[in-house]
Amino acid sequence: MSSTHLMDYEPIVGHQTLEELYLLAEGLKGKRVKMVNSTAIGGGVAEILHQLVPLLDELGIQIQWEVIKGGEDFFIVTKSIHNALHGEAAPLTQRMKEIFLEVSQENIKNTDLDQDIIVIHDPQPIVFIEAKDRTHAKWVWRCHIDVSHPVEEAWNFLKGYVEQFDAALFSSPRFSKRLPIPQFLFFPSIDPLSDKNRELEPEFIDQVLDRFQLPRDKPMITQISRFDRLKDPVGVIKAYRMAKHYTDCRLVLAGGGASDDPESELVLNEVRTEAKQDPDIHIIVLPPTSSLDINALQRASTIILQKSIREGFGLTVSEALWKKKPVIGSAVGGIPAQIIPNLTGSLIYSTEGAAYQIRYLLSHPEAAKKLGEYGHEYVKEEFLITRKIRRYLLLFHILFHPGERIIPL
Amino acid sequence: MSSTHLMDYEPIVGHQTLEELYLLAEGLKGKRVKMVNSTAIGGGVAEILHQLVPLLDELGIQIQWEVIKGGEDFFIVTKSIHNALHGEAAPLTQRMKEIFLEVSQENIKNTDLDQDIIVIHDPQPIVFIEAKDRTHAKWVWRCHIDVSHPVEEAWNFLKGYVEQFDAALFSSPRFSKRLPIPQFLFFPSIDPLSDKNRELEPEFIDQVLDRFQLPRDKPMITQISRFDRLKDPVGVIKAYRMAKHYTDCRLVLAGGGASDDPESELVLNEVRTEAKQDPDIHIIVLPPTSSLDINALQRASTIILQKSIREGFGLTVSEALWKKKPVIGSAVGGIPAQIIPNLTGSLIYSTEGAAYQIRYLLSHPEAAKKLGEYGHEYVKEEFLITRKIRRYLLLFHILFHPGERIIPL
Repeated sequence: MSSTHLMDYEPIVGHQTLEELYLLAEGLKGKRVKMVNSTAIGGGVAEILHQLVPLLDELGIQIQWEVIKGGEDFFIVTKSIHNALHGEAAPLTQRMKEIFLEVSQENIKNTDLDQDIIVIHDPQPIVFIEAKDRTHAKWVWRCHIDVSHPVEEAWNFLKGYVEQFDAALFSSPRFSKRLPIPQFLFFPSIDPLSDKNRELEPEFIDQVLDRFQLPRDKPMITQISRFDRLKDPVGVIKAYRMAKHYTDCRLVLAGGGASDDPESELVLNEVRTEAKQDPDIHIIVLPPTSSLDINALQRASTIILQKSIREGFGLTVSEALWKKKPVIGSAVGGIPAQIIPNLTGSLIYSTEGAAYQIRYLLSHPEAAKKLGEYGHEYVKEEFLITRKIRRYLLLFHILFHPGERIIPL
Repeated sequence: MSSTHLMDYEPIVGHQTLEELYLLAEGLKGKRVKMVNSTAIGGGVAEILHQLVPLLDELGIQIQWEVIKGGEDFFIVTKSIHNALHGEAAPLTQRMKEIFLEVSQENIKNTDLDQDIIVIHDPQPIVFIEAKDRTHAKWVWRCHIDVSHPVEEAWNFLKGYVEQFDAALFSSPRFSKRLPIPQFLFFPSIDPLSDKNRELEPEFIDQVLDRFQLPRDKPMITQISRFDRLKDPVGVIKAYRMAKHYTDCRLVLAGGGASDDPESELVLNEVRTEAKQDPDIHIIVLPPTSSLDINALQRASTIILQKSIREGFGLTVSEALWKKKPVIGSAVGGIPAQIIPNLTGSLIYSTEGAAYQIRYLLSHPEAAKKLGEYGHEYVKEEFLITRKIRRYLLLFHILFHPGERIIPL
């Protein structure tokens, strides 16, 4: 699907970064690595694998990607497990467990496990680890979700599988659980060449602003997020209003998904009520394929907000930082991993805090510029796809030669 | 010996850093840890343990420190092994190996090995690992020396022991070897409360300068090092002279140990010859207990040099950075771990490079000041004794609960 090549990243990350990837891969030539997940299209994990697999292949890793198969009943069970791991009361009956195990065994039977490394993504294919003794492979569990506060029963069910892996990978220290196996920090990443993040012509950005009827007469504060109470769009309006008292500005609230979600229709109404016909508040409902529009809106903004009440990793923060924008984000989920206060952004804990930071950044454009620039460098270092590839290569080295890398403490 | 308490570091590292140490130690309460090395006084390792052991004890770790016993013949063997690990052609006969093993076995017999963790320092007590099966302890080898280029025979002899440990600790990624066991990076550290590093009254510094007849009329460039060709004092004079051509300055070469070392007397003569009666070059031979004088000289300096040709870790760099001095150091040994070019100091590869950097820093005092300030922050983060304690506590956690800490890649 992706036709991006490693070379395409050279102008962005520099020759040396790519050189290092090739060097690391050199020692892994011919190693067979299999990625296993539960879906080929749709969802973050599939998107990641579409990017990652061709690039690892280009580096000479013999990489395969396998998607497990299952009927509706199987995926109802995995959805329930997923929700329970997020702490929601979701059923997990004996019959559901049976379906989970039976379908997993069927998948195992049909999979070539003659590999050097097998990476299982998320809980859906986790039962594959039961085949460990039949392989010489090293087994890795890549957990993309936050399992720090699961429903206990679901975690107890899963734990027995997790503990058999040679390593577990988590997206944030906050997302993991105490385990008797080595755990590694694998930040999620953004792709600087994707439509969401690539450079845009100024003319294109202007066209997008025209289309959304957004004048450029005032500083523009933007939050890009689903219309969901957990993103606190009403709080964003309140913060904007407090700040506007001191410096005139516009607010853009842009995000997807009203039609398929009755909840979000409700939230949109709350937002419209709170906006009170203020002509400087722009509420934009975006269709699902709006990457270029989102990119343009971010690039046209003066400040980007992510005022979430709960959050996954919150990669929108890195997307905005990549565009050298000063970002104000709540200290929830993965946001504190991206925002180092007063170095790569502003971390807030309240609506008043958000208002204060908007006011401060609008009246200190030099400081705001610096936050954006440092933020860009930090994203380049930690949150780009090339860094993710480097992490996988390092991990493979460590699995094959535990003492080859020296681990900093 | 040391009467320093953890609380004494609070004004320096802050409340939160200490709080974190107590939190980490909480989960290790009552654990029995034994440190084993080969000498109770004299030498860097003994100095480290004198600091470290009481502080770990204060944190509630049941810590013991054991010094192995041996006759002159034993320590002749260990000295020979030490030299061979550094790459020098040193004898290691069958008889020498026998002495090494016999004395080690004798020491093992007399040691209480009912511990949770046993840390063996350097090669002298390494044979202790032979008792591993008789204990339930986790075994750690803390290697303080650079074993990256050893005499092969000596390394082959030692390797069989090293590979039995549960973990190995090295001071720099450059100092280690490929091993089949996990390796951890343990930077050496400085003590901000020691005479070498603590704050001094301006009046005291003035007195020291008066005593050494050092006027403060010109910028002062200083290298503190033994008079040893590997520290390149003659190269320092040449670099000073090239820079002085552009900006007038003084040079201070201060270091210990002429009387007990005929080699250093030779080097001192070379240095005096190169200095050619220049009244702005000050050659100061210091007695071994000159910590306060060295501290004062560093604090009075404009720039600190460490122009070594070979180096161990080179902690003098961190000592100087701690005093917020801009440091120019050669890219050898552990110096590149301390100097991030143009952020925490200047890294050089030649006498001309040193001259250029002196000239640049003298003519850009703002940039020089920034290097010193960043350097200070970096040392606070990475090279203070409190960070070393944190590393040990983290290591103990990892050894007991391999999956409890998430490892960044």
